[in-house]
Amino acid sequence: MYNAEDAARPHEECGVFAIYGHKDAARVAFFGLFALQHRGQESAGITSADGCHVWEHKGMGLTSEVFREDVLSKLPGNLAIGHVRYSTTGSSVLSNAQPFLVHHADEYYALAHNGNIVNALALRLELEEKGAIFQSTMDSEVIVHLMAPYLKEGLEAALTKALARVEGAYSIVMLTRNRVIAIRDPRGFRPLSLGTLNGGWAVASETCAFDLVGAEYVRDVLPGELIFIDDSGLHSLMPFAPVKPAHCIFELIYFSRPDSNVFGKNVYMCRKRLGRNLAREYRPDVDLVMPFPDSGNYAALGYAEESKIPFEMGMIRNHYVGRTFIQPSQIMRDFGVQVKLNPVTPLLQDKKILIIEDSVIRGTTSRNRVRRLRECGVREIHMAVSCPPTRHTCPYGIDFSVRGELIAAEKEKEAEIAAFIGLDSMHYLSIGGMIDAMEMPGNDFCLACYNGAYPLPPPPKFGKFCMEDAPAA
Amino acid sequence: MYNAEDAARPHEECGVFAIYGHKDAARVAFFGLFALQHRGQESAGITSADGCHVWEHKGMGLTSEVFREDVLSKLPGNLAIGHVRYSTTGSSVLSNAQPFLVHHADEYYALAHNGNIVNALALRLELEEKGAIFQSTMDSEVIVHLMAPYLKEGLEAALTKALARVEGAYSIVMLTRNRVIAIRDPRGFRPLSLGTLNGGWAVASETCAFDLVGAEYVRDVLPGELIFIDDSGLHSLMPFAPVKPAHCIFELIYFSRPDSNVFGKNVYMCRKRLGRNLAREYRPDVDLVMPFPDSGNYAALGYAEESKIPFEMGMIRNHYVGRTFIQPSQIMRDFGVQVKLNPVTPLLQDKKILIIEDSVIRGTTSRNRVRRLRECGVREIHMAVSCPPTRHTCPYGIDFSVRGELIAAEKEKEAEIAAFIGLDSMHYLSIGGMIDAMEMPGNDFCLACYNGAYPLPPPPKFGKFCMEDAPAA
Amino acid sequence: MYNAEDAARPHEECGVFAIYGHKDAARVAFFGLFALQHRGQESAGITSADGCHVWEHKGMGLTSEVFREDVLSKLPGNLAIGHVRYSTTGSSVLSNAQPFLVHHADEYYALAHNGNIVNALALRLELEEKGAIFQSTMDSEVIVHLMAPYLKEGLEAALTKALARVEGAYSIVMLTRNRVIAIRDPRGFRPLSLGTLNGGWAVASETCAFDLVGAEYVRDVLPGELIFIDDSGLHSLMPFAPVKPAHCIFELIYFSRPDSNVFGKNVYMCRKRLGRNLAREYRPDVDLVMPFPDSGNYAALGYAEESKIPFEMGMIRNHYVGRTFIQPSQIMRDFGVQVKLNPVTPLLQDKKILIIEDSVIRGTTSRNRVRRLRECGVREIHMAVSCPPTRHTCPYGIDFSVRGELIAAEKEKEAEIAAFIGLDSMHYLSIGGMIDAMEMPGNDFCLACYNGAYPLPPPPKFGKFCMEDAPAA
Amino acid sequence: MYNAEDAARPHEECGVFAIYGHKDAARVAFFGLFALQHRGQESAGITSADGCHVWEHKGMGLTSEVFREDVLSKLPGNLAIGHVRYSTTGSSVLSNAQPFLVHHADEYYALAHNGNIVNALALRLELEEKGAIFQSTMDSEVIVHLMAPYLKEGLEAALTKALARVEGAYSIVMLTRNRVIAIRDPRGFRPLSLGTLNGGWAVASETCAFDLVGAEYVRDVLPGELIFIDDSGLHSLMPFAPVKPAHCIFELIYFSRPDSNVFGKNVYMCRKRLGRNLAREYRPDVDLVMPFPDSGNYAALGYAEESKIPFEMGMIRNHYVGRTFIQPSQIMRDFGVQVKLNPVTPLLQDKKILIIEDSVIRGTTSRNRVRRLRECGVREIHMAVSCPPTRHTCPYGIDFSVRGELIAAEKEKEAEIAAFIGLDSMHYLSIGGMIDAMEMPGNDFCLACYNGAYPLPPPPKFGKFCMEDAPAA
Repeated sequence: MYNAEDAARPHEECGVFAIYGHKDAARVAFFGLFALQHRGQESAGITSADGCHVWEHKGMGLTSEVFREDVLSKLPGNLAIGHVRYSTTGSSVLSNAQPFLVHHADEYYALAHNGNIVNALALRLELEEKGAIFQSTMDSEVIVHLMAPYLKEGLEAALTKALARVEGAYSIVMLTRNRVIAIRDPRGFRPLSLGTLNGGWAVASETCAFDLVGAEYVRDVLPGELIFIDDSGLHSLMPFAPVKPAHCIFELIYFSRPDSNVFGKNVYMCRKRLGRNLAREYRPDVDLVMPFPDSGNYAALGYAEESKIPFEMGMIRNHYVGRTFIQPSQIMRDFGVQVKLNPVTPLLQDKKILIIEDSVIRGTTSRNRVRRLRECGVREIHMAVSCPPTRHTCPYGIDFSVRGELIAAEKEKEAEIAAFIGLDSMHYLSIGGMIDAMEMPGNDFCLACYNGAYPLPPPPKFGKFCMEDAPAA
Repeated sequence: MYNAEDAARPHEECGVFAIYGHKDAARVAFFGLFALQHRGQESAGITSADGCHVWEHKGMGLTSEVFREDVLSKLPGNLAIGHVRYSTTGSSVLSNAQPFLVHHADEYYALAHNGNIVNALALRLELEEKGAIFQSTMDSEVIVHLMAPYLKEGLEAALTKALARVEGAYSIVMLTRNRVIAIRDPRGFRPLSLGTLNGGWAVASETCAFDLVGAEYVRDVLPGELIFIDDSGLHSLMPFAPVKPAHCIFELIYFSRPDSNVFGKNVYMCRKRLGRNLAREYRPDVDLVMPFPDSGNYAALGYAEESKIPFEMGMIRNHYVGRTFIQPSQIMRDFGVQVKLNPVTPLLQDKKILIIEDSVIRGTTSRNRVRRLRECGVREIHMAVSCPPTRHTCPYGIDFSVRGELIAAEKEKEAEIAAFIGLDSMHYLSIGGMIDAMEMPGNDFCLACYNGAYPLPPPPKFGKFCMEDAPAA
Repeated sequence: MYNAEDAARPHEECGVFAIYGHKDAARVAFFGLFALQHRGQESAGITSADGCHVWEHKGMGLTSEVFREDVLSKLPGNLAIGHVRYSTTGSSVLSNAQPFLVHHADEYYALAHNGNIVNALALRLELEEKGAIFQSTMDSEVIVHLMAPYLKEGLEAALTKALARVEGAYSIVMLTRNRVIAIRDPRGFRPLSLGTLNGGWAVASETCAFDLVGAEYVRDVLPGELIFIDDSGLHSLMPFAPVKPAHCIFELIYFSRPDSNVFGKNVYMCRKRLGRNLAREYRPDVDLVMPFPDSGNYAALGYAEESKIPFEMGMIRNHYVGRTFIQPSQIMRDFGVQVKLNPVTPLLQDKKILIIEDSVIRGTTSRNRVRRLRECGVREIHMAVSCPPTRHTCPYGIDFSVRGELIAAEKEKEAEIAAFIGLDSMHYLSIGGMIDAMEMPGNDFCLACYNGAYPLPPPPKFGKFCMEDAPAA
Repeated sequence: MYNAEDAARPHEECGVFAIYGHKDAARVAFFGLFALQHRGQESAGITSADGCHVWEHKGMGLTSEVFREDVLSKLPGNLAIGHVRYSTTGSSVLSNAQPFLVHHADEYYALAHNGNIVNALALRLELEEKGAIFQSTMDSEVIVHLMAPYLKEGLEAALTKALARVEGAYSIVMLTRNRVIAIRDPRGFRPLSLGTLNGGWAVASETCAFDLVGAEYVRDVLPGELIFIDDSGLHSLMPFAPVKPAHCIFELIYFSRPDSNVFGKNVYMCRKRLGRNLAREYRPDVDLVMPFPDSGNYAALGYAEESKIPFEMGMIRNHYVGRTFIQPSQIMRDFGVQVKLNPVTPLLQDKKILIIEDSVIRGTTSRNRVRRLRECGVREIHMAVSCPPTRHTCPYGIDFSVRGELIAAEKEKEAEIAAFIGLDSMHYLSIGGMIDAMEMPGNDFCLACYNGAYPLPPPPKFGKFCMEDAPAA
């Protein structure tokens, strides 16, 4: 049921966390992952080290399900990295959980990755041609294979040479027996931040992880930067020629937590401005404005503030919705909607309402919710979406629609989409209105999902080669 | 960590659900309990029957943890009752989970109870004097013992005679091989509603359970009413002389879900009016008004609407906070606060803010949150509470403070409490303001926790008799 | 698969253990039950106390499955009782696990029982007539109800008065906050022994439990004896007029462990003498004698010693057979036989063999094994059974055939049974040969299953009253 | 406790099983592993395929713990391989469970291995020098890396070239999407047999696995043979020059199940002849001869038959000893002995006894048991061991002593060892007596653990390279 509803939502992807120099590193990594749980709920893993030995634990499920006290107590050491992810279906899902761990020349290398490597299949074919054996179908496994021949020259040299071959989006944390490494691709597609905790260092996909563990934000890991942390301190390396950044604007619109700062911007404030700009573009005659909680909350607040139309929380979220494996029986109609959100009928009956959504991908979830609102006697239902129509798939780590289609790619006009969902009217924020809300230069962003302008060519379709489980890490 | 923070909140207590005439009764009961999960998270249980056999399953934990598909498939039958509860610590906690099931004269009696029987100990002593053997320390077990001698006269007679001896708050659902019974005490302390689903009948503590399973609300079970449901239909019995109702006003203020109607009133609307009345009583000079999510949301909305002060959601809730058994290490400061709620620093920095709370019982949770806000650079913090100070304990089923004290019972003036919590100023809603918001006659409510006027005498302290685990069912 | 084969074997029933005066009482009880595991594998439970509080844990499965370190650490106290049992199918099996625990007049009473109360249903009806409420369908629950009215006169008086009403087989251990009680019925159907451990006391169904925990055997609890153990020491009470003992001879033949002494006799030595007497009665012309391991081992040794025919272990037991829930596919023939016992073909091919069995109840297990031996090319197969034909059911706690029939009750002559099983010839030990092997007076035994002479009348069939789950405790 | 006692026993090592052409292949593999459980109890794994897809499941624990019906139902396909193993402690034990699975050029390769590759570390260093990345620390992972560059020439060629580099003991089963391969090293150190089941093929470490699944033994996989099984049938390849066999004689003496035939010999019969030869070499004056069950049973039978001294089963095995994680308290003395074996005191008291053991490695287990027997009042205790003293470690897959030492390597004379164990006298079977019992040419065996004559040079100690978890597969 959880899945039934959420499968239609865009899937981020992954979250990574690293800590160096904390006597209880795995525990800190656990809480770091806990704060990043929204970035991936299908598996969780932590690898820790103490300068000499390496330990790991991975499992399917939420961080709090995978890690119990007895598991955590078997992950000693003062450095650790962790990962949460959305897995994809396939033969052997656990083998794709991260961090993955390899052995080479008496050293361990653990790697956790957020993003997607565009030329992974081509590199893999090339490596296999030379005799490489892969343990997983993850795109990031190519990186360690590319490194291996150069490790004699040192980890810095090996990583630089390996990454020079790799194209795509990657925010990576790595661990060896005594080092933590943080890496961000030259375009900086995905966020990655550096923090400090009690004299040690922390790295996280989002700053909300620092808040939870009590770390202080220092700065972002820069696009194209490799940071090596060991006993001698923190060393930064920027081996690649600088290129124009291509930050994923969808992180600010949808994925990241509102209490995080990503790409130097506070997510909550950006979303309120998205709502404000929506109000400037579109103002139907309604009695109240409300979000579909919780992702639409902040744009709805911005809209209400700008428009002076009352803000209400007309659908109530069941806070215990999580992992119920019981299937409802046939007779319980519209179940998928109600288990998560239940409308407050006396508030909505006979009203004209405006719903603020942060994204409409397939449209089916919205359609179910709108039908449920109609049953409560809502008179008019309008919808404003705090971003433009999503018309193109993302090769850099976001899975917009597992099995479905992008409704905006199919239906050209807002009126068509509104009809499909069952709305009286509908409006998507303009690209200009979206960029204006970010208060950053528009060409620092990747807007490919809206305008098809891919900063890096997406991967070709391969002919005979069929990598079953190719994951969005 | 879940507990660390929430233990200081008032504990409801229990939720009950019953279904008659559904081919998948236990499944419907599961979803009914799922919707009532906020009323008790420590144990869950379902008893089902098919006219001949009886099955049961109970366990510690959330409904979705206790019931998996394999468990549910072993609960056949077309009638079922269920229960969620807060347990109290004690020797053998599982034996206090409900529904509890007894055997007598070739019949089964399962009973699930929300409320607290005031004269349970006296009745128990009397029954034991006559040789009764108890299987639990639950107050409601006395009811079946009181019934037993009269069962030969029929269940209606036996229940009537038994309940004539019982004083207190009880909203009860019972099940036999082929009957479901719903009972509400003469004062109607706790809510209990009747619904219909596909030609069968449903009973629930709150109407939000009907919404989830697709049942339609019919009416409340009346104070003092016994409803018997079997193959011949629904029979209502009102054997007791009518008395003045004493609905628990705290259900509307705090416990019930905002999308429920209880005592004939919509909870969301009542809470908005509480906030509106707060704004009429207290208006500090602030930049924004915000709730501690989620329970303060609706009063905050009402306050903002009345006062025209901007409403913000300045603390972000981690939706994956549930059951993490990992303890944070010492170095992570203020952990208890942040794991659940994290402030949006850029929004709050240097601002004067008003927080709306729905209750302040011990004050320690608020104090931690306020300290965390101060660390973010909030300039002034004021607080308005959407009910009067809670000064008296509740003998009718609410556990205000397990181990702590009622701060308002200790500290006489708002200024003292504000100082304890670290606020610049503070205001509790007046009793008049509270009652006005309900749009019901004030003397239909039990206000004992505010004014000490107990509709029924609370139980005496017993001397030698020490019932260890005496639960608030 | 475990069950498929073993369901046809006679089912003991239960094992009980008690310990008083050990600082780690529950742990000792755990190991005591571990040694008694052969007496019941379906559920296990321990109740402990420290003079003031009482704790319990029960679960379905083997002792080592039910009790893990974290569970055991929550059972403190210096006195404990425990129970292992075969459960019967029914509505709510866990509620029939023992020890069961009741509360009465501020005291706890936990009770664990081995045996069967013959007049339980009659007593139950009588008690229910007076208003008693039962928590289980166990026969032994009547005892606590019978006690309750007399508890004011003290536990000794109450127990004496209650047991005066009870007829049947009962070896019982009880626990209160600060006492352990051991009880054996006047006929001493089931064994119960008293031991001492480090200045404290232990009670067990068999002496092998004393060996495992390092306790020393003191004496048997006498038929009709009640032993009370508390801070003031051990008090013995024999309130009933002495009657002729009726020890269950099947304990020595089949149930008890060979390293135990029961009824004052060593089980291993008795079984060897049974085999010796078999050899004196029946001597087919064979090449070797072998048991079906392990229960036939000792009689086979006695037979070989007396007859000078070589002893072989021609079927090998898989020691990992325990709890496999995987069902074999259709194509694997004779699976039930081989998974537990696999023949050593080169040893048996073309041989004439004599198999020694300790009991043949339904004959189906033997038939499968004999067929498998034929497939290996065994030329002649004869069988000697170390007891007489079992012709009558047991009302005192042994479940000879859950769903099947007693083959010896159906088929009059050995030749008929041999033909059913597929044997060349067959012989049952005579009643005289059996009694002679015990080296005790024959009339100290209950021989009802062999000769139908019931020492106590078996319970009548009740008409309308249908106690679904009536267990053999 | 299970471990406490058994850790001192020699550790086999591993068992492998494969099935091709059965519609329920994983289920058959499950039961095959179940029969081979004695060869490894720490982890179990199955990989299955259907010609196109590949599935796997591995876990720590017994086969019956790792595989439940829900797991097995997710392993479809008509070919499967499986593995049970003793793991060694290390960083990440699950990652060393087998079969391990790799991906290369759009094909999967799963491999399960019994034995030990002598030059694994040298090969690994060489491969890593060329850039190979390893997923585990298992010796057999080198085989797939050695194969990879040649896979373009076909699997036969690639395996032949890879195995030409490999030295040591290996009985291997492999699986691809549509093939099963069985491989045995040129010396045939470990057993591996071929069987047929319903028109398909089975491969197993021991023939007892065929008995359980209903397969028929066809022949042994020959030393140096590679067998490829696919849709076109069974193809045999013998690419290596023949060398003298070196069968592990300890398989017949100790490891293999008595109902198996290995190296063409029945294990039960060999062990009886070992006992017979013992009786010809050593005949102390005793009242009875007994084994420590169960491994000494068969030699003890042979000894008794030859010597005419009565055979007894003086120590009783607890059949429920398996996995108890509860630690006994200090007060329970000699616990480790009694939990598994309990002496039958009345049988042994005041007797002179001879114990038959199949191996004495460290001597500590025997010493505990002998002390326990002395406490029972045994007068004289002699011991005969059905093999010569184990004086040399095994580099081919047997782990004689995890942390301890070989007592026979330390103490030169039998008298010294007898004194250590607490015996009155002791005798080890001579090498001649051992070989004679096998009824095979003595120089077909590896006798290195007895005489130090290693058929292949054992691996050198590596200097800086320290492969932490180097497993005996």
